[in-house]
Amino acid sequence: MAVKSDIEIARVARKKPILAVGAGLGIAAEHLAPYGHDKAKVDAGFIRSLRDRPDGRLILVTAISPTPAGEGKTTTTVGLVDGLNRIGRRAVVCIREPSLGPSFGMKGGAAGGGYAQVVPMEDINLHFTGDFHAITSAHNLLAAMIDNHVYWGNALDIDVRRITWRRAMDMNDRALRQMVGSLGGVANGFPRECGFDITVASEVMAILCLAEDFQDLERRLGSIIVAYRRDRTPVFARDLKADGAMVVLLKDAMQPNLVQTLENNPAFVHGGPFANIAHGCNSVIATKTALKLADYVVTEAGFGADLGAEKFFDIKCRKAGLTPSAAVIVATVRALKMNGGVKKEDLGQEDVAALTRGCANLGRHIANVRRFGVPVVVAINHFTSDTDAEVAALQDYVARHGADAILCRHWAEGSAGITELAERVAELADSGQADFRPLYPDDMPLMEKIETVASKIYHAGEVTADKAVRDQLKAWEAAGYGHLPVCMAKTQYSFSTEPNLRGAPEGHVVPVREVRLAAGAGFVVAITGEIMTMPGLPSSPSAERIFLNRDGHIEGLF
Amino acid sequence: MAVKSDIEIARVARKKPILAVGAGLGIAAEHLAPYGHDKAKVDAGFIRSLRDRPDGRLILVTAISPTPAGEGKTTTTVGLVDGLNRIGRRAVVCIREPSLGPSFGMKGGAAGGGYAQVVPMEDINLHFTGDFHAITSAHNLLAAMIDNHVYWGNALDIDVRRITWRRAMDMNDRALRQMVGSLGGVANGFPRECGFDITVASEVMAILCLAEDFQDLERRLGSIIVAYRRDRTPVFARDLKADGAMVVLLKDAMQPNLVQTLENNPAFVHGGPFANIAHGCNSVIATKTALKLADYVVTEAGFGADLGAEKFFDIKCRKAGLTPSAAVIVATVRALKMNGGVKKEDLGQEDVAALTRGCANLGRHIANVRRFGVPVVVAINHFTSDTDAEVAALQDYVARHGADAILCRHWAEGSAGITELAERVAELADSGQADFRPLYPDDMPLMEKIETVASKIYHAGEVTADKAVRDQLKAWEAAGYGHLPVCMAKTQYSFSTEPNLRGAPEGHVVPVREVRLAAGAGFVVAITGEIMTMPGLPSSPSAERIFLNRDGHIEGLF
Repeated sequence: MAVKSDIEIARVARKKPILAVGAGLGIAAEHLAPYGHDKAKVDAGFIRSLRDRPDGRLILVTAISPTPAGEGKTTTTVGLVDGLNRIGRRAVVCIREPSLGPSFGMKGGAAGGGYAQVVPMEDINLHFTGDFHAITSAHNLLAAMIDNHVYWGNALDIDVRRITWRRAMDMNDRALRQMVGSLGGVANGFPRECGFDITVASEVMAILCLAEDFQDLERRLGSIIVAYRRDRTPVFARDLKADGAMVVLLKDAMQPNLVQTLENNPAFVHGGPFANIAHGCNSVIATKTALKLADYVVTEAGFGADLGAEKFFDIKCRKAGLTPSAAVIVATVRALKMNGGVKKEDLGQEDVAALTRGCANLGRHIANVRRFGVPVVVAINHFTSDTDAEVAALQDYVARHGADAILCRHWAEGSAGITELAERVAELADSGQADFRPLYPDDMPLMEKIETVASKIYHAGEVTADKAVRDQLKAWEAAGYGHLPVCMAKTQYSFSTEPNLRGAPEGHVVPVREVRLAAGAGFVVAITGEIMTMPGLPSSPSAERIFLNRDGHIEGLF
Repeated sequence: MAVKSDIEIARVARKKPILAVGAGLGIAAEHLAPYGHDKAKVDAGFIRSLRDRPDGRLILVTAISPTPAGEGKTTTTVGLVDGLNRIGRRAVVCIREPSLGPSFGMKGGAAGGGYAQVVPMEDINLHFTGDFHAITSAHNLLAAMIDNHVYWGNALDIDVRRITWRRAMDMNDRALRQMVGSLGGVANGFPRECGFDITVASEVMAILCLAEDFQDLERRLGSIIVAYRRDRTPVFARDLKADGAMVVLLKDAMQPNLVQTLENNPAFVHGGPFANIAHGCNSVIATKTALKLADYVVTEAGFGADLGAEKFFDIKCRKAGLTPSAAVIVATVRALKMNGGVKKEDLGQEDVAALTRGCANLGRHIANVRRFGVPVVVAINHFTSDTDAEVAALQDYVARHGADAILCRHWAEGSAGITELAERVAELADSGQADFRPLYPDDMPLMEKIETVASKIYHAGEVTADKAVRDQLKAWEAAGYGHLPVCMAKTQYSFSTEPNLRGAPEGHVVPVREVRLAAGAGFVVAITGEIMTMPGLPSSPSAERIFLNRDGHIEGLF
């Protein structure tokens, strides 16, 4: 039997009109701004009107440490919602919007896969409803206003060597990483070093995803630190009077996007901050709106649970007052075998011993998530190459850790393949077992917060940092930023800072090379390795093979 | 009586649902992709289905040489369509989309004014349906693929000193005009000079506005010259295999945007190329679609008739096979007085003598437009400060030139104030007087085409150009580009290349400083002065005063 590609499946989806999907959630047509017939934004007034409704239960989908074998976190998030609806529960998906730039490099889509996708997947992976373009515009307006301020006399006394606000573009373009701008003489300003980050790395993206409403958005945008003076005092976006116009540019982008799964269940796809230098979760406004409209909201966090789930709990849930009821950790037999030392080309061979070794990675993620007071179930995202012995060994391992590992076939079968997980998740979420608590209190010193994450979540032996880094953290505490959570920028491939150290390493050293203050988003970023904020294209980018065929269909994108 | 601002008028507009506006044109709901409830895109299949219908009549609105006093060309275009509909004619507006960047500098909106506007004006002036963002993305994908190609070995042997393709951003940001990129060592590529133009100056914008369909779009994008080799042979976008992915990024942007006037008449607002280094007209696809759906299509060209109308006729109409039936030249008493030497601060004073002197500018534009075989009527866009004596003198002047000058009060009164012009325009368009012909034949040598425009339209005495410029034109002729029309980049404020030379100067010298080949758009640009392709912000940009008020309304944008 020929296996259909994601795009072939998506193209023949029987989509409901988006107004009908909205109606199913109780959203009247006048509160939905349609974008085509299959996408819509929910208006701000309607969201405000929900304020006094009770919240549904929030379920996080996270994963083991990612490997090139693939885990299927988004696919499982989408499949689980279809499964919950199939067993009669009102459930909604809440996931991030994909970035445009990487689609032209080598990455495929980010809207699920197989029979567990959100649609229209081509639109979602391209311009969608324009949110990222709006974020890019707001980001770059602020940048233009900084250089313009300097050009016209620099009344704020900005030290042009200490302008920290870069520019943004949703494109993989390494030529933009490091530049000298304002060249060409008097009319073009004061030459200085500058550069671009990809839009998902913009603090504006993180802010949009954490803001509760327009007033909060404006306050946070105004609080962005764009530069420092010679005396090291910060210059804020509001000092440049940029915050109001940035809000205007983000007016529509702030509204959650409603789409649907292949099985016509509602999905909010909204916001998409990086999961390394930012918190890697969809928007607070979408999550909170979904909680008012459904009994179960299934959301997802970036990378493995050491990064994504930790930030979801310690940044998003802490700051937005969200209390998750259950977590699903997605694992695959293949990825666990890679964590157990098997090479990608050998994954087709049964190897129970390697699988069992790799389970140490899963075991640690289970324990970590429980540390936040959230009960766990493991989803085994089935691949046809998995053997019964491997699946049984995995289930045994998880059972010994006091949890269930449930085999899921949603990729091949849609909701029919994931009802067992859906039943178990609903039961767990309804059980009242959850007692959510962040990992550390707000008033812990910043360095201690970093050490707490490193020791409790990563099982590191030591955190190292230069005096300059430690002094900087103390200076921010003195300036009133000590209450912020920390956002760890670490490789996603290992609990350590060494990408090749798979499994469950212990006692490693976590070097904090640099710290950055995202004063608008509201976190302190601790950078523990090389973090690429502007990707490049590969030698043969997928853009070379993308085209519109004679039927008007996109070829080569996925 | 307090005069309402444009935004106050627009905000209380009784808009029809956009699907109803479409239905009025015979477009079924399934062929419209709505963007909110008041904007929609017309789908490609529907447009193809119109092929065999007869065309309506095409009417151009152009103007005298612009002055700081303002002429109201868009306002008159919109008002005329409302007037035509008021007198029982089926008429549609076709205008350009405004650029986002300048909205944060000092420019107001570009959607008409007073009671002759297209709505939703705030959306139209901000992200609208995302067309310009898509154009920016397609432009910058090509740029990224050039540097990426060089980075991975430069198999095409591009001379990095001769990369002509810059990057684009829809923002006024002088710091981006001239840069050095790819700094930072081996991983970031080969350092080289680069820079950004504002999106409306992108050749992708010009291409989108001239392309007939997706195949033509792909062919034109592929024909863009991005660089030269050491041997001066050109490297095309299709050599980088960028054309297919660029089409995919422009898939939705290619579809015309339907909105409405304040009086609920249909308006296509689509595309917006610069009127200096490009041809300054809305898209061919929107114009042709409108001609299939209405009896009268009123469109507009940028700047005064010497630039906008000439390019509309010699580039857009020639290449797209359009045959305009009539032209309206918009003039104001104030602007003619400025052309006659009055300072802006003295415009409130009656000055018939100055007005009469300034009429020389209008007279030349009338003669120029007639040279293309298109009959002319003059619209006097009324200001309250105009005196009866001034209006009478203007009407006398125009009558002596064998045309009518009709006083229009659409800004204050909507369609009721412009029925006389509407009657006259319909009569002229229906009269069969038009016998459209471009100014010069395709097979005229390029330098001669430039000289023809300069002598016949500008009344210049001489065109000067370096040997290098003349040799370049000959080289392009040898390479097969000799049949292209020329696109003159000249100041809009004068028939000469000297902005302060108002009125109707003669015998001046037109220096062609540089020529550029837009091989994808299909014209040769002749640059006759300083052409700014990336504007800057003023010392106190309007962005500082733009914000979202507590009711969710935008303040300070207009």
